[in-house]
Order: sequence, then structure tokens, then C-alpha cells
Amino acid sequence: MAMRYLTSKLAQQIDEELMDSVGKFSIDQLMELAGLACAQTLATVYEKDKYSRVLVCCGPGNQGGDGLVAARHLGLFGYKPTIWMPKPGSKEIYQRLKVQCDNMRIQTLEPTSDLGPLKKALSASDVILDAVFGFSFKPPVRAPFDEALPLLSQSGLPIVSVDVPSGWNVDEGRVDARALEPDVLVSLTAPKEGVRAYKGRHFLGGRFVPKSMEEKYQLNLPIYPGISQIVELPRAEDSQKL
Amino acid sequence: MAMRYLTSKLAQQIDEELMDSVGKFSIDQLMELAGLACAQTLATVYEKDKYSRVLVCCGPGNQGGDGLVAARHLGLFGYKPTIWMPKPGSKEIYQRLKVQCDNMRIQTLEPTSDLGPLKKALSASDVILDAVFGFSFKPPVRAPFDEALPLLSQSGLPIVSVDVPSGWNVDEGRVDARALEPDVLVSLTAPKEGVRAYKGRHFLGGRFVPKSMEEKYQLNLPIYPGISQIVELPRAEDSQKL
Repeated sequence: MAMRYLTSKLAQQIDEELMDSVGKFSIDQLMELAGLACAQTLATVYEKDKYSRVLVCCGPGNQGGDGLVAARHLGLFGYKPTIWMPKPGSKEIYQRLKVQCDNMRIQTLEPTSDLGPLKKALSASDVILDAVFGFSFKPPVRAPFDEALPLLSQSGLPIVSVDVPSGWNVDEGRVDARALEPDVLVSLTAPKEGVRAYKGRHFLGGRFVPKSMEEKYQLNLPIYPGISQIVELPRAEDSQKL
Repeated sequence: MAMRYLTSKLAQQIDEELMDSVGKFSIDQLMELAGLACAQTLATVYEKDKYSRVLVCCGPGNQGGDGLVAARHLGLFGYKPTIWMPKPGSKEIYQRLKVQCDNMRIQTLEPTSDLGPLKKALSASDVILDAVFGFSFKPPVRAPFDEALPLLSQSGLPIVSVDVPSGWNVDEGRVDARALEPDVLVSLTAPKEGVRAYKGRHFLGGRFVPKSMEEKYQLNLPIYPGISQIVELPRAEDSQKL
């Protein structure tokens, strides 16, 4: 049975069910495991000695929260992350996650629409963690991200995208020229329809889906190795050969 | 600089500071990472093929919560955990964690003071995860644990204890004959004074201590390898040779 790719609608439904009276997870739990998986993916592909300076780009929603958690774990792994989060969401959890990063002595750029600080940070980074937009992204790309995404691409730095590369249509894929083309993608819970044809290295994280839900939605998730929080998926080219 | 062993008082203080206005962690976050570390420790020492049936023994406090999280991750790793939690704490989080285990189809024995079900479960288990008492334990061992701990010991099953082996005095060590003698110990955050002389395999988990707090309390934590959530400590015998 092939792994299921989720429409944006089904991804939303599963996310809600994980946290409602059925799933009973708190957002703190899910975000912690998701962010840990993102940090582990980046650290698996980009070794600390060569790629210590990670620019963690965070959007205004829950994916930005995943980014903050990932930044903290990267700090704990010995990387030197910097956070760019120009439009911090208003939820109380983002403020807590931000303080947790402060306590790890992780620098956060001042939230501003001016892209100067971002440009400067890009020139002093080795790799980008793209936690800008996730499965609830609806076009168009709004300011300041409309101008920021091209800057990330033009930097030439390797990019690790979380869940859905920023700017991609969750159901249809890369239909906007400003959308990122990441080297690595870490899907969370289950991959989304729009990334079926994604050609880079592709990992899955979010090893928290209960059996009851995996069966109900026939997710056919791959088997994670041992105690790992991530599993690498076959590349799109490879699967097409099968 | 040698790693710091915490008194029960200091352990309490650090735990509170992690979650107060300074640390800003939620208990959900800390318990998730602690429980994951416990599951990973057990799975590192006791392979799934030979030791699939894990009896997770949970006390009434936060350590019991760590046990519930560990049981869920063990289920996700492919083990077959069974939970024994005779005195479930009243905090809402324990109820949520229990439902999360239900959704993984993990069996929980009916909460009862009758030790019959525990005996039966022991005879159908390969290894014990001891999450009964932690760093806030104050003697004496109360019912039904006073009679249960000797049953765990008499089972002859390997035991993995969380933070402080159950029945041990947190500051003074193993001074009660009913206290467990685990094969493996996973200390959380930092090891406690009472386990200085512990002779079995000893791991550290809880890779969440912020730099600010590690420095403030001069914890001198060991370096965790790579992206791992646990690190094995030198055995007590080895350190004495130094």
C-alpha cells in the first residue's frame, strides 16, 4: 500500500483531530516533536562543522512555532542558529518558545518589514531552515515574505523546508515563481499532495500519529528506523522507476 | 569540571525554574522530551525482538507522566508496552497522556490496590520500565507500592529506572531494602546525589537545559552525541579509577 499524500483539507482535519477530544495532544507536544524532527533532519544532512550558522526563517503561524522549537534544538546540538521572524504570531506559545531560545542565547532579528537585517543575516549564514509557510498556506504570498522568499533563493545557500516549501501551493505544488526550491524537505505527519513531484532529499517527521488515526485515514506511513524521529523517503525519481 | 549531582532540593528548584517566568517551558514540553529519552534508553539497551513486552510501572506524580509518554513512544518504536498505574494522579495531563496511549492500543491495567493483575502482567513481560518514584519522592514507600516494589525485584526481569530508582532516597541512595536495584538508570536533567554510587548502565536524558541555567547552576553536563536525546555516562567504577 502506497503512502498517502494529504490534501490541504485532510491535513487540516488530521491536525485538528490530533488535538481534539479524540487525539488529546496539546500543541506543545506536537510542536516539540515536529520541531525536533526538523532540527534532526537539518543536522543529518548538514554537518555542524561546515554548516554551523543556520538562519531559521519563521512565518506567523504554527509553522513558525515549529521553527522556533527547531532553532532551540539546533542550539542544543551545537549549531549557531539565528532567527528571522518578521511577523510573530500573537499566540502565547510563540512568546514562550521565543524566551526558550533567548535562554539558549540564540539571536532573534528585530521584527521589521525592512529586509536589510535579513540580507545581512543571509550573508553570515551557511544554511537556511524554511519554516515560513506550512500546510495551511493560502496564496498570495504577503509582505514582507513576497520579497523575502526571492532573497532566500538568491542567497545560494542550501535550504531545508518544513512540511511544504514556502510559496508552494499545498495541493498543486510549485506554481508561483517566487516559491522556494529547497534541497531538503521534511514533511510532518504525512506528506502533502503538492510535494509528490518534489525531487530533493525528502524526510518524514512527526512520529506521533496514533495507530487509531493511521488506520482511520489509511496513511500507510513508512517504518521509522529504530528510535529515530525521522525517516528518509525514496526520491521521487526512484519511486517512478518502481 | 565534574558533572554536578543535584540534591533533592536543588532538583526541585531547577524543575520549577524551567517552568516559571524564567524558563517558560510547559510541563507538556518537558514531559515529552523526558519520556522520549526514557523510551530511547530502554530501546537502546533492550532490543525489540527479544524484549518487546515492556511493563511500564507509573507512580502517582510527574514521573508517572514521564512513564506514560515513554509507553507511547515505545509503542511507536514497535514494542508492546503494558501500563500499570495503580494510583493515577488527578492532574488533567495524566488523563490526556492516558488517552494518547489508548489511541496507540496500549493496554492499561485497571487501577486497583489488588496486586494480582500486576503479578500476571509481570509473568508476561520481558523488561520493566520503573517510573514509580522520582526526585520528589519522600519515604516511606506507601501502599500499594510497598508490596509492589518487591514483586518487581522478585520477577527477575531487567529493570530500567527513571531518574531515581524507586524506593531510593534521593539524597542518600539505597537505604531501604525494598528499593529496586535496576540494571539501567536514565537520569533526567542532571543526576541526583543519591545515585552517585549507582553501578549499572547509566544514561542521561532531558536534553532541554538552556545554556543560561546550565551556567547559573554550574551543571557541567556531558556532551550529548550528535542529534541524540540521551548520552551514556561512564560507570561509577570507571570514574573512581580516574
